[in-house]
Amino acid sequence: MAQEDVASVVEKSVTFTAYKPQLIVESQRVGDAVAFYKAVFGAEETGHSLYPKRKADQELPHLVSAELNLAGTTVVVSDVSVNSNANKGSMPAILETDDVEAAVAKAVGAGAVNVEEEVEGGVKGKVTDPFGFTWIFVSPAKKSESDETKEV
Amino acid sequence: MAQEDVASVVEKSVTFTAYKPQLIVESQRVGDAVAFYKAVFGAEETGHSLYPKRKADQELPHLVSAELNLAGTTVVVSDVSVNSNANKGSMPAILETDDVEAAVAKAVGAGAVNVEEEVEGGVKGKVTDPFGFTWIFVSPAKKSESDETKEV
Repeated sequence: MAQEDVASVVEKSVTFTAYKPQLIVESQRVGDAVAFYKAVFGAEETGHSLYPKRKADQELPHLVSAELNLAGTTVVVSDVSVNSNANKGSMPAILETDDVEAAVAKAVGAGAVNVEEEVEGGVKGKVTDPFGFTWIFVSPAKKSESDETKEV
Repeated sequence: MAQEDVASVVEKSVTFTAYKPQLIVESQRVGDAVAFYKAVFGAEETGHSLYPKRKADQELPHLVSAELNLAGTTVVVSDVSVNSNANKGSMPAILETDDVEAAVAKAVGAGAVNVEEEVEGGVKGKVTDPFGFTWIFVSPAKKSESDETKEV
């Protein structure tokens, strides 16, 4: 990307339509965490992803991630093994936007560090801001209500 | 509290009316963080607390905490120096409930660890869950729209 293109992207207005804290849990404990948040906080599960069948042949099938409604906010509980560069116990925030590239450019222009960009079922960007928080930019989710299986 | 009282509290239904991620930032950087989140994410400030006047005589006045609307979610940016047992870059979650004591009892009954209980303008409870996340239970906020000053 040429220097002037970067500048125009930084100036661009970017709209964020949803904020979802992502709770990264130890491998194979998404189910336990979901049970805990349901029991203690009255959270309601609104969607989840499972490990693919071929893995379920060898071990009990389990969740890679689950989306919960917790006191009116959507919270994503996610297995650390499917989140590169994330530690268990960390809580990156997912921000949905129609323009991931512009969001990354704008954040970096203001002092954030681009941690990772990947294409995996859609454009995705990840930055760490000057205050130590990680933000993941994604296109709005369209797949949270089904038992989708996902290759990991 | 007698053993059977604890049991009855654990069984009690507890309602949580709001979830607010709290972003703990380095001392005296709440203002910078708020400016960043406004510029980059289009966040809107909905309230804040300032250091008290007597400190402002010696140094520039600055924010101890600010409440932002970020993509529809209320996010609290807070100075690490007024948050005991919290590290900068951490993100404890605030859950508002009318029954803080019951919330703590229920969480502890399900395996969370009671980190801290304090009375500071209202009952407050803090637990760490079995997955490494910290939850702060507070009575619903009634003071977020004014320039309230707070002793620290």
